[in-house]
Amino acid sequence: MVYGALDIGGTKIAGALVDTEGRVVARSQRPTPARDSAEALMAAVTSVLDELADRPEWAALACLGIGSAGPVNTFAGTVSPVNIPAWRSFPLVERVRSHPAVPAGIEPVLIGDAVAMTAAEHWIGAARNAANALCMVVSTGVGGGLVLGGAVHAGTTGNAGHIGHITVDQNGPVCPCGARGCVERYASGTAIAAHALESGWTPPAGLPATAREVGTSARAGDPGALAAFDRAGRALAAAVAATAALVELDLVVVGGGVSQAGDVLFAPLRRHLASYAVLDFTRDVPVVPAALALDAGLIGAAAAGLSRAGAGAGSRATL
Amino acid sequence: MVYGALDIGGTKIAGALVDTEGRVVARSQRPTPARDSAEALMAAVTSVLDELADRPEWAALACLGIGSAGPVNTFAGTVSPVNIPAWRSFPLVERVRSHPAVPAGIEPVLIGDAVAMTAAEHWIGAARNAANALCMVVSTGVGGGLVLGGAVHAGTTGNAGHIGHITVDQNGPVCPCGARGCVERYASGTAIAAHALESGWTPPAGLPATAREVGTSARAGDPGALAAFDRAGRALAAAVAATAALVELDLVVVGGGVSQAGDVLFAPLRRHLASYAVLDFTRDVPVVPAALALDAGLIGAAAAGLSRAGAGAGSRATL
Repeated sequence: MVYGALDIGGTKIAGALVDTEGRVVARSQRPTPARDSAEALMAAVTSVLDELADRPEWAALACLGIGSAGPVNTFAGTVSPVNIPAWRSFPLVERVRSHPAVPAGIEPVLIGDAVAMTAAEHWIGAARNAANALCMVVSTGVGGGLVLGGAVHAGTTGNAGHIGHITVDQNGPVCPCGARGCVERYASGTAIAAHALESGWTPPAGLPATAREVGTSARAGDPGALAAFDRAGRALAAAVAATAALVELDLVVVGGGVSQAGDVLFAPLRRHLASYAVLDFTRDVPVVPAALALDAGLIGAAAAGLSRAGAGAGSRATL
Repeated sequence: MVYGALDIGGTKIAGALVDTEGRVVARSQRPTPARDSAEALMAAVTSVLDELADRPEWAALACLGIGSAGPVNTFAGTVSPVNIPAWRSFPLVERVRSHPAVPAGIEPVLIGDAVAMTAAEHWIGAARNAANALCMVVSTGVGGGLVLGGAVHAGTTGNAGHIGHITVDQNGPVCPCGARGCVERYASGTAIAAHALESGWTPPAGLPATAREVGTSARAGDPGALAAFDRAGRALAAAVAATAALVELDLVVVGGGVSQAGDVLFAPLRRHLASYAVLDFTRDVPVVPAALALDAGLIGAAAAGLSRAGAGAGSRATL
C-alpha cells in the first residue's frame, strides 16, 4: 500500500508515493510555471501525476493528498495561492480527481501547506504522539497548524492554525493582509531582515540581506541581528501563549527556513514565552524544532489523504 | 431522566436538576462562605446536594456536572477559584462523588464556568447547531469557551477558550496574571469603568462607577463612556479575529453582565472586527448576544455531565 501526495508551491510542483512508514518511495517534480496560465499550471500537475502513475507502486495507491500554498478552501476543493496568480479559486481537487490514472474511489484530500507540515510532524516527526500541538512554519511568511485531541484540526476550510496573521499588537503596523500588528510583521524572514537593517546590521560584503545572513551575524553576536531575532521571538511568544490559552497545548514545534537559525531564534522565543504564558495551564509548554525538513509537505499531504481513506494513521485531519 | 448540576461561584453555590430539554426543574442555593475554611465551603456544597437529593426527580438522575469559577483542573478533578482562597487544588470531584446520595456509577464531570456557559449556549442557546463557535463571558473578568467540530472543546485541563488572557498588545500594561496587554485589561467591566473615569466620564450622582453605569452614560452619548466601550470592543475584536484565524469560527456569542450594555458594546466590537478579521476564512463571522442568562452555569454543567454520560446531547464536552 502506498499513499499518493502532491505538494503545490510557488517554486515547484512536487509529487510522491509514500509508504506506510512515511518514507518517500517515488517522486516527481516540475518547476511551477507561476506566471503562466491556469491550464499551463494544471499541465505541470498532470505531468507529475503521469510520472507517478508510471511507477509500479501506483497499483497499490490507497489515497491521494494534496498540500498547497494558500489560501486554500478545502470545503470547496479550491486553491488561490498568493504566488500563483492564475489560480484563483481553481478547482484543483476536481481536476486531480479527473486525471485518468487516478482510480475511481480515490477521493483527493486538499490541505494548506502549513497544515500539511503539521500532519507530517504529527505522523512521524516532532509532534508524534502529541495530543495537542501547534506546529509553525517560520519562513518567508509565518504559517501554522494545530493538532487537537490527537488529530489535525484543519478547520472548515482547511486554514486553522493560521498564526502568522493573528494580532499581537492591536496598534501595530498595518500588515499587507489589512489587519494590524500581525505576527508575520515581526517574525517572517522578510521582517527579520528588514528590522536587522533598521537596527544597524549590514550583511557581509557581497551577500544578500536575508534572514539567513542575519542569523549568521546573530550567532557571531551582532547587536542589530540579535535585536531582530529578539523581536521575532517576542511576537511568536505572544502568539504561542494566546494559542495555548485558547486551545491548551502540550507541545510547540517550529520549522521553516528561519528556524534553521537555531538558538538565536529559539532562545528569545522561549524566554519571552515564559513571560507571556503564565497561566497554570499555559506555562512550561515545550518548544522544539521540527524533525522533518524538505519532504514535510509531501509526507503531510500523504498523511492527509490517509486520514480520509480511514486507513488508520496516527494523524487524522479534521477536514 | 434528569441531569444534575452544581455551579460554584464566589457569591453563591447553586445546584439544580435539569430536564432533557435544558429546563431547570429543581434548584437549591447557598451563599458561598468564601472567606471560610475548605470544609465549611464543602459543607455548603453537601447541603445543596442534600436538598436536591430530597427531590423525587433525584431518583431519575442520569449524570452530574459541576461548573466552577476558575482556575479548574478537570484532568485532576480539582478547583482553585481565585475568589475562594481556602480552595486551592481542592479535590471537588472526588468529594462530590463520595456524597452518600450520589449513586455509584455517576461520575461527576467538572468544567470551568466559562466553558459551562459555552456548553449551555451550545445545547439550547445562541450557539445551538453551531459547529465552530467562540462563546465569551464579558463581566468582572473576561472568559470564554470553544465549540469545535460540533462539540465543546474544553482542553486537557478544562481551560480552553481562555480569551481574557490572550495578549492583544505585546507592549501593553502588565496584567495581574503577569503577562502584558491581556484582553481583560481593556474589556472587563472593571477596565471599562476605569478607562471611562480616565476619559472624563463621571458616574451619575450617588451611583457607583461601574460598567453598568458607563453603559447607561454611553447610550446617552457621553464621550468618555463611549471611548471606554470602543476600547473594549477593539480588544475583543482583535482577540476574536485571532481565535478565528487559529481555529476557524462560524459564530461568536457574547454574554455576561457587560454585554447587557447592548449596542454600545456590540457596535464597536463588530466595527473593529471588520478591520482585524480580514482573511477569506475569518471575515464576516456573526457576533450575537448570548441567549441564556442567569441559569447558563447550571444548564451548562448539566450539559457537561451529560456529555460524559454519553446520553446523546448535542453538546459533548471534550474533557
